[in-house]
Amino acid sequence: MFDRLINPGSIAVIGASHNPQKIGYVVLKNLVSHGYRGEVYPVNPKGGEILGYKVYANVEDIPPVDLSVITLPAELTVKVFEDVAKKSKFIIPIAGGFGETGKEGKEREKKILEIAKKYNARIIGPNTVGIYIPSTGVNTALVVPERSRFPGDGDIAFITQSGALGLLTMDSVAMYNVGFSAFINLGNRIDVNENELLEFFGSDERSKVVIMYIESFRDGREFMRIAREVTRKKPIVVLKAGRTKRGGRAASLHTGALGGSDAVADGAFKQCGVIRAYDEVELVDYARALAYGKPIHGDRVAVVTSAGGVGVVTTDYIESQERGIGMKMAELSEETKRRIKEEVVPFASVENPVDMTAQASDEDYDGVLEALNSDPNVDAILVYALFQTPLISERLVDIITRWHREGDKPIVVGTIGSEFAMRMLARFEENKVPAYPSIERAVKALRVLRDRGEILRRLGE
Amino acid sequence: MFDRLINPGSIAVIGASHNPQKIGYVVLKNLVSHGYRGEVYPVNPKGGEILGYKVYANVEDIPPVDLSVITLPAELTVKVFEDVAKKSKFIIPIAGGFGETGKEGKEREKKILEIAKKYNARIIGPNTVGIYIPSTGVNTALVVPERSRFPGDGDIAFITQSGALGLLTMDSVAMYNVGFSAFINLGNRIDVNENELLEFFGSDERSKVVIMYIESFRDGREFMRIAREVTRKKPIVVLKAGRTKRGGRAASLHTGALGGSDAVADGAFKQCGVIRAYDEVELVDYARALAYGKPIHGDRVAVVTSAGGVGVVTTDYIESQERGIGMKMAELSEETKRRIKEEVVPFASVENPVDMTAQASDEDYDGVLEALNSDPNVDAILVYALFQTPLISERLVDIITRWHREGDKPIVVGTIGSEFAMRMLARFEENKVPAYPSIERAVKALRVLRDRGEILRRLGE
Repeated sequence: MFDRLINPGSIAVIGASHNPQKIGYVVLKNLVSHGYRGEVYPVNPKGGEILGYKVYANVEDIPPVDLSVITLPAELTVKVFEDVAKKSKFIIPIAGGFGETGKEGKEREKKILEIAKKYNARIIGPNTVGIYIPSTGVNTALVVPERSRFPGDGDIAFITQSGALGLLTMDSVAMYNVGFSAFINLGNRIDVNENELLEFFGSDERSKVVIMYIESFRDGREFMRIAREVTRKKPIVVLKAGRTKRGGRAASLHTGALGGSDAVADGAFKQCGVIRAYDEVELVDYARALAYGKPIHGDRVAVVTSAGGVGVVTTDYIESQERGIGMKMAELSEETKRRIKEEVVPFASVENPVDMTAQASDEDYDGVLEALNSDPNVDAILVYALFQTPLISERLVDIITRWHREGDKPIVVGTIGSEFAMRMLARFEENKVPAYPSIERAVKALRVLRDRGEILRRLGE
Repeated sequence: MFDRLINPGSIAVIGASHNPQKIGYVVLKNLVSHGYRGEVYPVNPKGGEILGYKVYANVEDIPPVDLSVITLPAELTVKVFEDVAKKSKFIIPIAGGFGETGKEGKEREKKILEIAKKYNARIIGPNTVGIYIPSTGVNTALVVPERSRFPGDGDIAFITQSGALGLLTMDSVAMYNVGFSAFINLGNRIDVNENELLEFFGSDERSKVVIMYIESFRDGREFMRIAREVTRKKPIVVLKAGRTKRGGRAASLHTGALGGSDAVADGAFKQCGVIRAYDEVELVDYARALAYGKPIHGDRVAVVTSAGGVGVVTTDYIESQERGIGMKMAELSEETKRRIKEEVVPFASVENPVDMTAQASDEDYDGVLEALNSDPNVDAILVYALFQTPLISERLVDIITRWHREGDKPIVVGTIGSEFAMRMLARFEENKVPAYPSIERAVKALRVLRDRGEILRRLGE
């Protein structure tokens, strides 16, 4: 349904500009610089050429296109809208000045929606940063390139009501190589809404998980119906903002959202197998766990570390109900303890956490992971890849990756450090291993995989 | 009391080695490369020269020193200990193989402690990574320099029972320019303990805050007595690990710690004004808030953002009791709203959060901060410095820093992004402005400053 939006064969930029300061220029430039390979039709009454593209003076002059991006102010957007709708399958009116500003803006929305319906065109927005699709190079979002980053292609489909929060979130994880299959900003959401998109990405093979930032649902019942279906195929993570009374008020000023009770939302999410995140960090952390990791069936976790203190804090977080995830430290089998002690690391503590101390080598990690992988008392493994000690090398990334891919047990990785650790995080990410830069974030990824295991179990009943 | 440990005029390295793979070489190299300027006396029966230093064949041959670092294995450490103790004010025996390994190791500890007492020398450790003092260049800790970082000089004194957790934690924040006044690893803690050090750093002018990683207190009552005194002068943040039953068991395997009930610990911390952290990220996040920020008196927070969604999520976190900090969004005065709307940003939403939208400029931030600074309804300000929009520049760092320094209200900064945002975080850090790379972390810093305000109020009663 949205194939031609995600992968358009042709794009018109209505209001394309010769002036590098104008968004009509930047949008065009973004298309070029992110490698979009389809046809591009800049439209501007002045004609001429921009960035090597022939500029059309009138929308009438261009052939039909899959997508039109309107970079004009609200009033002009309305003015050209009928001409654009005649030519386009999808239209992204970027400008604000619509429903979010009051009565006049609402009138504008009504007008463009009527026109779109008449010509069977679909609107994303208005008042939106639009879409960013790394795999096809379609990018209508405006940020200052020197001060922000766009992520590469990946497994995460991101539907967001807030464009800025979405772009900031993608920016913050781009440096770790986190990739996205699609990013779509609903904006004022007068036409295309989160439910249709959720359904679409539910069947999109390139998206392994769908994440959403939502301040209000267009149709909660419909969302639940679709979520229930999608969650059988892939996980959904929702950051529902405006969950407090005052937050709801802020949301209504932001996107005009009217939220309901958060307890009701929470119950509904649980019922239909949606996993909740509470901020922008959790949203992507959980997405990565769910996209790359195996669901955890059971609650017994084995922890591997070379730093004793990290093992102790992790144990607290795993076991605590109040400040932690309320799972359990596995009681390792006698056979596992024997193997680790006799065959791998005689100097280590073979209770759980398995503390290999600063003497640990890459091979020791390999041996311990092998032993834990065949322990029937272990449901999941949290392994700390700490690169600060002398016998550990970058090869540890490959060793853990192999156990993640070939072993039976779900694996989550934690690492702590500066630039080097972050480079290793990016390598884990390339290998699609869920890895996190702090104890708490690694442990919370375990919980999410356990939740996913629970959801799948319930669905199977 | 510990002046000669922190700032030793002379250091002996017992077991200094010619072999770059040996810790007796690395410790010596660390001293040189971190800029230690005092006298250095390497001791090794082979004599000769290492790294340009004359090597002494016997401990007897060196003059008295402030600090001796023993890099020999446990058995040899005991053997040379009397000779070393005769010459030293402080001794750091690095090796493991003491009390943590059982009876034989306990005997060794007894022996060296007796000797130290006889000669009035003090022991840090054994089984410790030792100490790192950025300002004097004293560094006995062993890590692989290519894969980790040491932080620079700063306001945070760090006392830790776990060496590895401590080093990892410092490594992870070094890239943000977070600085430390001192790092001391207690190790097996047979002599110098956390209470003496807390008392010392309580009076140390260079330390603005003391943070501790502790698995068990040597003397809880004494800790409380000292903490109560120190907290009048400066904040204390404690990460008490082993807070769950199973975590306590892991701790006892790690450092032999025997923890008590966590509820008791929690009550005791509250009573004596100690702020709790639950992981390595909170530990330093809170330290930075407390070292740089003003205590918050009251609970009404004003939020400034250019991204609406960030404002909504922040509002939820501030107001929520269960998943948040249970503070309040300030009701801005009519005068403030008028000023912001009429004089600064007519396009903004002047409810709280103040959403200046992507059109915001550096000057707009300045104007809004000025208005909020004189609003009697505002107890603290959380300002998001988001550098992705076109009218924002690096100058925003200076503007916020100025309000942090010259304004009356406590300010916390949030930012979200990749490399550029992280560079700006490092600049805020240099300016000693508490700044955080996520919504949740910024909001939690507010809570800690409010807790500090509460503690000071109670002490004043």
